[in-house]
Amino acid sequence: MDTPRFLHAGTDALLAPDATADRAAASPSPTSQRLLEKFQAIRAKSCEIAAPLSAEDCQVQSMPDASPIKWHLAHTTWFFETFLLADFDSAFEPFSPEFKVLFNSYYNAVGEKHPRAQRGLLTRPPLSKVLEYRQSVDARLLRLAPRLTQAQRSAFDSLLELGLNHEQQHQELMLTDLKHMLSCNPLKPAYIERPSGDQPAAGGTRVAAPIEWIAFSGGIADIGHEGAGFAFDNESPRHQVLLEPYLLADRLVTQGEYLDFINDGGYTKPEFWLSAGWDMVRSAQWHAPLYWEQRDGEWVHFTLFGMCPLDPNAPVAHVSYFEADAYARWAGARLPREAEWERAAPGLVHATEGNMLESASWRPLPVRGDDGPGLKQCYGDVWEWTASGYEPYPRFKSAPGAVGEYNGKFMCNQYVLRGGSCVTPATHIRATYRNFFPADARWQFSGIRLARDS
Amino acid sequence: MDTPRFLHAGTDALLAPDATADRAAASPSPTSQRLLEKFQAIRAKSCEIAAPLSAEDCQVQSMPDASPIKWHLAHTTWFFETFLLADFDSAFEPFSPEFKVLFNSYYNAVGEKHPRAQRGLLTRPPLSKVLEYRQSVDARLLRLAPRLTQAQRSAFDSLLELGLNHEQQHQELMLTDLKHMLSCNPLKPAYIERPSGDQPAAGGTRVAAPIEWIAFSGGIADIGHEGAGFAFDNESPRHQVLLEPYLLADRLVTQGEYLDFINDGGYTKPEFWLSAGWDMVRSAQWHAPLYWEQRDGEWVHFTLFGMCPLDPNAPVAHVSYFEADAYARWAGARLPREAEWERAAPGLVHATEGNMLESASWRPLPVRGDDGPGLKQCYGDVWEWTASGYEPYPRFKSAPGAVGEYNGKFMCNQYVLRGGSCVTPATHIRATYRNFFPADARWQFSGIRLARDS
Amino acid sequence: MDTPRFLHAGTDALLAPDATADRAAASPSPTSQRLLEKFQAIRAKSCEIAAPLSAEDCQVQSMPDASPIKWHLAHTTWFFETFLLADFDSAFEPFSPEFKVLFNSYYNAVGEKHPRAQRGLLTRPPLSKVLEYRQSVDARLLRLAPRLTQAQRSAFDSLLELGLNHEQQHQELMLTDLKHMLSCNPLKPAYIERPSGDQPAAGGTRVAAPIEWIAFSGGIADIGHEGAGFAFDNESPRHQVLLEPYLLADRLVTQGEYLDFINDGGYTKPEFWLSAGWDMVRSAQWHAPLYWEQRDGEWVHFTLFGMCPLDPNAPVAHVSYFEADAYARWAGARLPREAEWERAAPGLVHATEGNMLESASWRPLPVRGDDGPGLKQCYGDVWEWTASGYEPYPRFKSAPGAVGEYNGKFMCNQYVLRGGSCVTPATHIRATYRNFFPADARWQFSGIRLARDS
Amino acid sequence: MDTPRFLHAGTDALLAPDATADRAAASPSPTSQRLLEKFQAIRAKSCEIAAPLSAEDCQVQSMPDASPIKWHLAHTTWFFETFLLADFDSAFEPFSPEFKVLFNSYYNAVGEKHPRAQRGLLTRPPLSKVLEYRQSVDARLLRLAPRLTQAQRSAFDSLLELGLNHEQQHQELMLTDLKHMLSCNPLKPAYIERPSGDQPAAGGTRVAAPIEWIAFSGGIADIGHEGAGFAFDNESPRHQVLLEPYLLADRLVTQGEYLDFINDGGYTKPEFWLSAGWDMVRSAQWHAPLYWEQRDGEWVHFTLFGMCPLDPNAPVAHVSYFEADAYARWAGARLPREAEWERAAPGLVHATEGNMLESASWRPLPVRGDDGPGLKQCYGDVWEWTASGYEPYPRFKSAPGAVGEYNGKFMCNQYVLRGGSCVTPATHIRATYRNFFPADARWQFSGIRLARDS
Repeated sequence: MDTPRFLHAGTDALLAPDATADRAAASPSPTSQRLLEKFQAIRAKSCEIAAPLSAEDCQVQSMPDASPIKWHLAHTTWFFETFLLADFDSAFEPFSPEFKVLFNSYYNAVGEKHPRAQRGLLTRPPLSKVLEYRQSVDARLLRLAPRLTQAQRSAFDSLLELGLNHEQQHQELMLTDLKHMLSCNPLKPAYIERPSGDQPAAGGTRVAAPIEWIAFSGGIADIGHEGAGFAFDNESPRHQVLLEPYLLADRLVTQGEYLDFINDGGYTKPEFWLSAGWDMVRSAQWHAPLYWEQRDGEWVHFTLFGMCPLDPNAPVAHVSYFEADAYARWAGARLPREAEWERAAPGLVHATEGNMLESASWRPLPVRGDDGPGLKQCYGDVWEWTASGYEPYPRFKSAPGAVGEYNGKFMCNQYVLRGGSCVTPATHIRATYRNFFPADARWQFSGIRLARDS
Repeated sequence: MDTPRFLHAGTDALLAPDATADRAAASPSPTSQRLLEKFQAIRAKSCEIAAPLSAEDCQVQSMPDASPIKWHLAHTTWFFETFLLADFDSAFEPFSPEFKVLFNSYYNAVGEKHPRAQRGLLTRPPLSKVLEYRQSVDARLLRLAPRLTQAQRSAFDSLLELGLNHEQQHQELMLTDLKHMLSCNPLKPAYIERPSGDQPAAGGTRVAAPIEWIAFSGGIADIGHEGAGFAFDNESPRHQVLLEPYLLADRLVTQGEYLDFINDGGYTKPEFWLSAGWDMVRSAQWHAPLYWEQRDGEWVHFTLFGMCPLDPNAPVAHVSYFEADAYARWAGARLPREAEWERAAPGLVHATEGNMLESASWRPLPVRGDDGPGLKQCYGDVWEWTASGYEPYPRFKSAPGAVGEYNGKFMCNQYVLRGGSCVTPATHIRATYRNFFPADARWQFSGIRLARDS
Repeated sequence: MDTPRFLHAGTDALLAPDATADRAAASPSPTSQRLLEKFQAIRAKSCEIAAPLSAEDCQVQSMPDASPIKWHLAHTTWFFETFLLADFDSAFEPFSPEFKVLFNSYYNAVGEKHPRAQRGLLTRPPLSKVLEYRQSVDARLLRLAPRLTQAQRSAFDSLLELGLNHEQQHQELMLTDLKHMLSCNPLKPAYIERPSGDQPAAGGTRVAAPIEWIAFSGGIADIGHEGAGFAFDNESPRHQVLLEPYLLADRLVTQGEYLDFINDGGYTKPEFWLSAGWDMVRSAQWHAPLYWEQRDGEWVHFTLFGMCPLDPNAPVAHVSYFEADAYARWAGARLPREAEWERAAPGLVHATEGNMLESASWRPLPVRGDDGPGLKQCYGDVWEWTASGYEPYPRFKSAPGAVGEYNGKFMCNQYVLRGGSCVTPATHIRATYRNFFPADARWQFSGIRLARDS
Repeated sequence: MDTPRFLHAGTDALLAPDATADRAAASPSPTSQRLLEKFQAIRAKSCEIAAPLSAEDCQVQSMPDASPIKWHLAHTTWFFETFLLADFDSAFEPFSPEFKVLFNSYYNAVGEKHPRAQRGLLTRPPLSKVLEYRQSVDARLLRLAPRLTQAQRSAFDSLLELGLNHEQQHQELMLTDLKHMLSCNPLKPAYIERPSGDQPAAGGTRVAAPIEWIAFSGGIADIGHEGAGFAFDNESPRHQVLLEPYLLADRLVTQGEYLDFINDGGYTKPEFWLSAGWDMVRSAQWHAPLYWEQRDGEWVHFTLFGMCPLDPNAPVAHVSYFEADAYARWAGARLPREAEWERAAPGLVHATEGNMLESASWRPLPVRGDDGPGLKQCYGDVWEWTASGYEPYPRFKSAPGAVGEYNGKFMCNQYVLRGGSCVTPATHIRATYRNFFPADARWQFSGIRLARDS
C-alpha cells in the first residue's frame, strides 16, 4: 500500500520508511508503544461515552446530519479494520463481510456505502454484536502490531494515529448527536445527572465583566501545522499570511449577552443578517439558539443534563454561522478570520485548559465565566465560528487513495471553527486545528468570539 | 361517560344499559368472563409477536406510515388505560402522565399527540418500561372488571371488545411494519426462520389452474353488519344495495401471473394505468411489487422468512391499488366492488379457513394454491383490493367523543380491501370487515381478485 | 378509424354507420348543419373570453393545475386538428408539426406531451400564431365537413360534438385559471369591470331565508345518461341505484352562513374535519375560502370584477371538498350523494336557469339569492360538491384509442360535483353531468348544498 | 440623505461634497455631463436588448433564479426612481405607488417586496406600461439633473453612476435569463439569427494549441480598487495579500477539452469531485454542461443563436463551480485564486478586448480561439471561476441604508468569478471586478482557466 501522505506526523521517518529495513518483525519503538496504549484508552473512552445509554438510545438517528451511537461505534472500528487490518495483516479475514458497506461513511474509493440518512434503520447488527466487533478488531490489532516488519511500522503507526484522531472526532459527534436525539423526546431526558449544587446562580446574578479588546499587530504570520505531533492534512502546509492589525474580544459572547440580542429584536431585523441567513431565520422560524425555549416566560435550554436554566455568564452555544455573524453585526463587530485566531491563540496546555471531554471537572455544557486578564476561553466550552470559508491552504494536496477523501472533498460551502468545545477530547485539540460546518449548522457546541479592525 | 355508540355489538342490551340497574358490583356475566379471557390471550399475543425481536428492532420507524413495535405495544395499552381505566376506575392514576401525549395516535379529542413521523425517536421510555406499562394496565383492568356496577358493565364490555379488536389490528400492523423495517436493512434479516422443507417447488413447476369465473346474479343485496358479534362502526348500518349480475374469479391472482404482466411490459405501458397510478410508476420508479427484486436474473422477494424465491402458484402480495387496477385492465377484467365481494363471500369458519395469524400452520407469507371448486381464498393470505372508495354506509354516524374518531374521519381518498391476510388474526376477520388504504400503499399484504360484468 | 364509442349521442345511427352507405360526399344533414353553426359560435366564444386580455395575460401559468389562456386556445384547436382533420382529411398536413407535442394535454396514445407544469414557459408560438392556428383549423374543418362521405359523417359528427363540449369545458377553465392568475398579482386587477350599481347591498342587509328541507322518497332511481343529446362517456350507462329517503336543502349555503362557520372557529376545531382535511388546514394555513381576505377587519374577496365585498346572501364559492364536508358536519348535516342530487334536480331549461356563462345577465361570480319555493339554484353560480367519489358507473367502458383517455383514467381520488357554475356555458350543463376534482381543489367555483337522512 | 459611501469613485470630491457649496443650481460639470450621456446610452441599450422579443417573451420567469425581461426593465428603472428621484426631487411623485413593492428586488430597508419566485406572474403592468415608466423616469431624471445644487451633485452623480452599473449588470442578466427561458421551449427558438457563414468549422477541424503555463512570482500583491473610476463596494478597500509563486494557463479550457473530460467518464467518477458536487451530479443527473445535449450521437448546445454544433476551439461555458473544480482536478491542476487572477490580468483596453456585449463584432456565445502569446482571453467570452469564496476584503464596510444591501449581504456560500463574459457590457468590466455565484449555478456564461502551484 501507499505510504500515507495525508497526515503530518512529527518525524520524517514516519513518512519515509527506510526501504532497506529488514522484513522481520521488530519490537515496537517506544513511540509505537505509546500509540498502542493510547489506542486502548481511546477505544475504551468511546464505550464509556455509550455506557449510560440503552441499546435503543444507541439505535436512533434523529436527523440525516447525525448518526446513531451504534453506527459511530461500528464505523470507527471499520476504520481500523479497513485501513489497518485489511492492509497489514496478510491473513486478514473480515469480521463480517457486510460491514464493509454498512459502516463505510463516505469513502468512495472503498466502494459502496449504506445511505447516510438510513443509518438509523440498521437494527441488525445489534449493539451487542457491534461491541463484539470492537473487541475483535482491537484484539486483532493488538496482536498484529508487534509482528509488523520495520518497513511496515511507520505507515502502520501513521494510520493508527489517524484512526485514533478519527475516533476522537467521533467521540465528539457521539455527544452532539445524542444530545440532538434526546432533545427530540418530549420527556427531555438527561444523558447523565447533573451533580447536585452545580446549577448556575438563580436569577443569573453573576454578571460577566465587559469585553476587553486585545490588540494584535499586523504583518506576516506563520499559519498551519509543521513539525512534531499529529495534525490532519487540512492543517498543512504551514504557510505565511499577511494580516492587518486587529482586535479580539478577550472572552466569548455569553448567554446573557445573546439574550440581549434576542430581546433587541435580533431575529426580526433583516439588517443584521446575511441574505441567506435571513431566509433561514424565516423559513426555519429561528428565534433563539437551538435547544433554547421559553417556559412560563423563562428561557431554559436542553443540555446533556436535561432541561436547565440559562447561565447568563457562560458562553452561548448552538448558534449557526448565520447567527454568530448577525450577532457580531448587531454588536458593531465582526467574526475573526481563522488566521487571526490562530496567530493569537496561546499554546494549549491540556492539563489546565478549559472544559473539555477529558478534563477533570468535565461538564457537558459550556460553563466558564470570564475571570482573569488576557485572551481567555480559547479552548473548550464552545467552538468559535470564524469568518473564513473552509478552503485548502496553499499547496494543499490530498493523499492518494481512500484516506485522501478524509478532508479535502468537503472544502466547499463550510466555515472554519476553532478551539474545541466541552465535548472535544482535550488531547484532540490544538491551535492549528480546523473544524468546519455549514453556515446553518447548529447542533454542534458552536459559539461566538468577536473581532474588530484596529 | 357516554354509552359508546360507535361499535355495534350483538344485543341492544349492550348498547342500552338498564338505567335502573343497581350500582353495586355484580359478578361478571359469562359474556364478560369470556371477554376477559380473550383480553388475556390477545394481550399475550402482542408480546409473542415482539418476542423474536430485540429492543433495537422494536425501536425503529422505517417510514412515516409505519410505527415502531414498541410504539404499537404502548399505544394499544394506552387505549385501554385512556378509554377504560381512566373512565371507569374512580381511583385512576395514570401509569405515567406523559404517556397520554406520547402514545396517542390520532384522537384529537384526547388532546395533544406526539407527531406521527417522530415516533421512532422515542428511545425513552425503553421497551422494558413499556412492557411494565402493559403489565400494570392489564393487572389494573383485571382488578377493575369484577368490581364494576351492573350499569357500567355493558359500556365497559363494549369498550373492552373495541380495545381488543383495536389491538388485533395493531398485531397485523406490527408484522407489516416490521417487515418493512427489516427490508430496509441490506442484511435482509429474517423475522423468524422458515421451517425446513417449506420452500416452494424449485423452478416453480406447480402451475395454477386457469381462473374459473363464478357467476352471481344481480338484484338487491343486504350489506353490512347487524346482529350478534362485534363489528366496527364502519360496517354499519346494514343496508341494501342494488347489484347487476357479475362474475368473480374463483381464486386470487398468482405471483406467476403477475410476472407475466411484468414481462409483458405492464409497468411501461400507460394504457393500463389510472393517470395518478402512471404518475406514481414513473416518479417512484416502480417496476414490480414492493419487496420484489431481481438477483442474477431471478426474481426473489423479501419475506418475514428473509429473501425467498417467488412461489408462482401463491397469491401476489404487496401491490398497490394502482397496480391491482392496472393488472385487471391488462387482464381484460376489473376489480370487484366491495358489495359484490361481500355478497359472494362465504361465511367464515375460523378453524378451517386460510393462512392467518392464528392458524395452526401459519406462514407469514401468502402460500395457498388454488385447489378445489368454487370461490376460494376469500380469507387469509392477502387482502383483496376492491374498486370501492372508502365511504360511509348510508345513515352512518360516528360516535360522539374521542372513540368516534376511530374510523369516520379517514373516509377520504382510500380504497376498501376485504378478506384479511396472512398476518390478520383469524378471530379478527369476517365477511363484513372493511379495511382501507390509500391507492399507493404497498406495505400491506394486499393482492388481487378479478371481477367481470356478466 | 374506429367509430367512437366514448360518447353517447342520441341515435343509434350515429354510433352504427351504415356499412352500405355510398362513399361520395353527401349534403350534410340538418343535424350536421346545426353542429357546424354551433362550432362557429363556440369557437368564437373562446376568443371572446380572451379578448379583454393582453398577450402577456394569456401567457402565464400561475400553478401546475392551471394552464395559460394561450395554451387553452391552442389545445382546444389541437383537439380538432388531431381527432378530426388528421383522421378525416386525406390530404392532411399539420399546421405546425411541433404542435402535436406542445399542445397535447394528456393523451398518451397520441404520443409525447409537453410537461404540464411547464406550459407557461412556451412564449413561442406567440398568441398571434395561436390565433392564426385557430383560424386555419376552423377554415379547414369547415371546408372538410361538406365533403365527407355518408359513411364518415356520423363518426365525424360525434367527434365534432365531443370537441365542442371539450372546448366548452376549457372555456370554464380559462375563466377559473385566469382568475387564479390575476389573484396572484398584488394589483388585484379586474378581468372585466363590474357594471355600476351591481354591488351587493352595503352591510349585507339582505338576509337569506332559512333553509327549507325538501324531502325525497327512497327506492330505485334511474341514474345516468341515455337517449338523445350529447353526454360524456362517464355519464353512462344509465343504470339503477337504490336510495334511502333523504332531504336536500332548498338552496345553497351562503357567504354569510359560511362566515358564521369561520366565526365559530370552524377552521380551528378538528372535530369538524376529515383527517386529511385537517392536515391540509394546518399545512396550508387555510382559514377561509380561497380568495377571501380580511382588510381592515372586513372580509372581502377577489373576483373577476377585482376585489369586492362579500355578498352575504350569495352562494359561497371556492371551497374545497374538505371545507364543504366540514361545514356540513358543523351544520349537523352532510353532503348529498350524486345520485340523490341527480334524482332531485329539475330538468334544465337553459333560457331561464341561473347565472351561467351564456346567460343574458351573466355575472362572473355567484349572485343569486334564495327567492321562491322548492329546490333552487341547481344550475349555475357554483358547482355543488357531492359526497360521492368519482367512480365508473356499472358496466362503464372507456372507448378504445386516444379518446378513451378522456375521462376514465381520472377515476381515482376525486369527488363528483354537480350543477355547473357561473363560468359554465349554459348549453354545456345537464342533470346527468359529472364534474370531478380532488378533495383539496379550491380554484373552481365550488360550493355547498346540504343534505340529511330523513 | 447620506452621502453614499458604498461606491468608490475616483476623487474624494465625489465622496465628500463641499459643505459650503451654494444651494443654487449649477451647470453640470463635464463629468456630470458625460454621466448623463452615458445614462441615455445605457438606458437605450436595455431596450435594445429587449427589442427582438415579444411582450410574451418578456413576461416569463423560467426559474426562481432568473427574472422576466419585463421585470429587469422595470426594476432598473425603480432603482433610479427610488434612489435618485425620490431623494433629490423635492416635488417627487411616484409613477405608480404600487411599483415600490412590485419592483424592489431585495432592499429590505426600502420596505416590502414582491416574492422573487413570483415575478413571472405579474402580467400587469404590461410591457407597454413598463416602457412608459422607463421614459417617464428618464425624462424626470434628465430634467432634474441640471437643477441640482452643487451640494447635491456629487452624491447624485455617485448614485447615478451606481445605477448605471446596476443596469449594466441587469443587461447581462437579461441575456442569461432569456437564454434559459428560450432553452425551456422544445422549439429551441433563437434570440437572434446567426450571421450566415459564422458557424465553427464542420467537424471541429480547428484544434486549440496546447496550454502554455505562464509563471508568476510570489510575494505581496496589491489587490482591489482604488483611485479613479467607478467600482463596486465589494472591490474595496485596496489591500495587500501574500501570494506564493504560481502558474496560470495562457488560455481558457475549450469545449473540445471539456468533451475529453466527459468522454473519460468525468461525470461518473467521484474521485474528481467535491463531495457536494458529486451529490449534485447524481441528484440533478448532470452529464454535461448546461445546454449541451446529444442528438444522433453528436453533441450540440443551445445558444442565443438557437441550437448549434459545439465549437471545439471556443471556451466551454455554462459549467458550475463544481464542474470547473472537477475538470481542474481531472486535468492535474486547480482553479486560480482571485488574487492570483487579478495580479496577473492585464489592464483592460475596452476597444480591442474580447467578445463582449458592446464589442463591434459581438457574438452572444463564446467564440475566441487561443491565438497569440501570453495570457489570453482574460476579458469576455466567459466568466472564470476562481477557487475563492466570496468574502469581504479586510476592513470592508457596507454603506448605511438601503444601498448598503447591494453586495455585502450576499457574502456567503458563493464563489468569485472574474473577467466578464460575452454578455457583459464591455464598459462594465475591469481587473478588480468581482462577480459571484453559488457553486451549483450554471446558467451564467461561466468557464474555466486552470492554475498550478509552481
